[in-house]
Amino acid sequence: MSVDAQILHALRTSNSGSISGADLSQKLGISRAAIWSRIEELRELGYDIEASPHQGYRLLSAPDVLHADDLGWRLEENQKIGRDIRVFEQTTSTNDVIEKLARDGVKEGAVVFAEAQTAGRGRLGRTWMSPARKGLWFSVLLRPSLTPQAATQLTVASAAALRNAIESHTGLKAEIKWPNDILISGKKVAGILTELSAELDRIKYILVGVGVDVNLNPSDFPPELRTQATSLKIELGKPIVRVELAAAILRELDREYARILAGEFSAVADEWEKHCTTIGQRLVIHLGDRRICGRAESLGEDGALLLRTDHGHLERIVAGDVRIEK
Amino acid sequence: MSVDAQILHALRTSNSGSISGADLSQKLGISRAAIWSRIEELRELGYDIEASPHQGYRLLSAPDVLHADDLGWRLEENQKIGRDIRVFEQTTSTNDVIEKLARDGVKEGAVVFAEAQTAGRGRLGRTWMSPARKGLWFSVLLRPSLTPQAATQLTVASAAALRNAIESHTGLKAEIKWPNDILISGKKVAGILTELSAELDRIKYILVGVGVDVNLNPSDFPPELRTQATSLKIELGKPIVRVELAAAILRELDREYARILAGEFSAVADEWEKHCTTIGQRLVIHLGDRRICGRAESLGEDGALLLRTDHGHLERIVAGDVRIEK
Repeated sequence: MSVDAQILHALRTSNSGSISGADLSQKLGISRAAIWSRIEELRELGYDIEASPHQGYRLLSAPDVLHADDLGWRLEENQKIGRDIRVFEQTTSTNDVIEKLARDGVKEGAVVFAEAQTAGRGRLGRTWMSPARKGLWFSVLLRPSLTPQAATQLTVASAAALRNAIESHTGLKAEIKWPNDILISGKKVAGILTELSAELDRIKYILVGVGVDVNLNPSDFPPELRTQATSLKIELGKPIVRVELAAAILRELDREYARILAGEFSAVADEWEKHCTTIGQRLVIHLGDRRICGRAESLGEDGALLLRTDHGHLERIVAGDVRIEK
Repeated sequence: MSVDAQILHALRTSNSGSISGADLSQKLGISRAAIWSRIEELRELGYDIEASPHQGYRLLSAPDVLHADDLGWRLEENQKIGRDIRVFEQTTSTNDVIEKLARDGVKEGAVVFAEAQTAGRGRLGRTWMSPARKGLWFSVLLRPSLTPQAATQLTVASAAALRNAIESHTGLKAEIKWPNDILISGKKVAGILTELSAELDRIKYILVGVGVDVNLNPSDFPPELRTQATSLKIELGKPIVRVELAAAILRELDREYARILAGEFSAVADEWEKHCTTIGQRLVIHLGDRRICGRAESLGEDGALLLRTDHGHLERIVAGDVRIEK
């Protein structure tokens, strides 16, 4: 834990609500002057820390900013995903940034967050709206020893993890729309964009881009999206502290990724399938120029959707633009 | 055709063996002074062009260099692969160079040649030896509208094209070792390294890296490779003009690629299978940590190898390190 994270942790967990400079100094093993200078820097980041001669320091309010250290200490000691966290005020797309890191040889588990993206990307080349400080827009770098064909397993695992984290953190019932959108009350609240770089028989790296509409207001969505998209704040009726949700998601991602590496994909897929409302529904799927209609039967062993077409064939759908017929 | 290419073409096809500056000037529609200056530049590249007051210019010998224009005019008028050819004296790996072009948005069909690679790559992270001016080391950029799962089709098509071009250009009997090595007399003479960048449901780009051992001498191979690797020059007993072979390969690649895009993979696969000596043989395949033994039965519809294991199962092998048991 960094000094910043230790100070914030001490302020948050102190019984009386405040802690003296002397106690902090002793606890962290650094001088009172150094404590003071770190407190000043935290204040500049927007942390409202009161200093009184008698009681010491007190955290009155924390800003809703993503702070790499304040996020990092909330993770499990030995988890891979998040062992290297970088937060940017603004990026084009976090997938672009993490891809540069990937090519520079950065280890797997690195995560890049952006407070805002100027060119956030959704699946199939679509744009992903990502207004400043209202969501979680981040990308995770993975380097699994898998064939490119197994990459769909990671999409399934990521979707399962994202759903679990959102549901358990907010208490809202969340479902998965195949392959990797997260819905609340039938509206999209989060999505995943997986990109891979590979030779034919080995993955070089995978980028898992995640976008969660956390504290967006209805007015943040363009009118044409309001019937299809929502945010956690809208559904919950109150805002969410993003750094806490981010930590919950990274913990879940790490857990599910470990299961994939341990060869437990079928257990992950079962969990995914339980929460996937797409299974059993009638779908219209656009695959490039092709349009396929049918009923979603189940999930294939590699994460593909098995679709019983209207002609009675069983088709294996790897990905595509899925519309649910109502 | 560029001016350089037109001059070379005129010199090569002149009936008397030589052509006057005046004739060249009229034929190309540029001044005699301009012809003279281009001839000077060609001489600097190593073309031995004699100029005599009475007979005009005569091409005594052409250097074995790769010249983008001299290669380009040998291709079909409307072919995609090769419409943008770049020749470098030296690169790390041509796949690295073409990947940068791909990320910069360069159109498909671009081809990067290097006279020498300092970090040529083979499959599975191996190095590929590529001494200066002795082989063809190049990479092709493709942007097919296919899913990443269909990328193996391009490996099959590339291997078929490379084999066809080598066999028809040299007259040597060439065979394919699954997935994409080209063998002559059982020794490796060429290989392909396919790399892809993709979202889960669409390919962003594919890089087809090709290495052909053209004019290497036995002493160019490290001793431990001499029993397994060979060159066209060794097999043929004489050197090959590389630019001519390069053109033959690019023409074949373009033809086979067009067939894949037209949905004719099964025809390409039939051709591939006819020349693949791996089918029917007993194999030991290393797939990461796994070792699988069995007999190669056929090629799956996506380019995978269908292996009947010693336990009687039919396994679908996408790629791996294949050893043929003798």
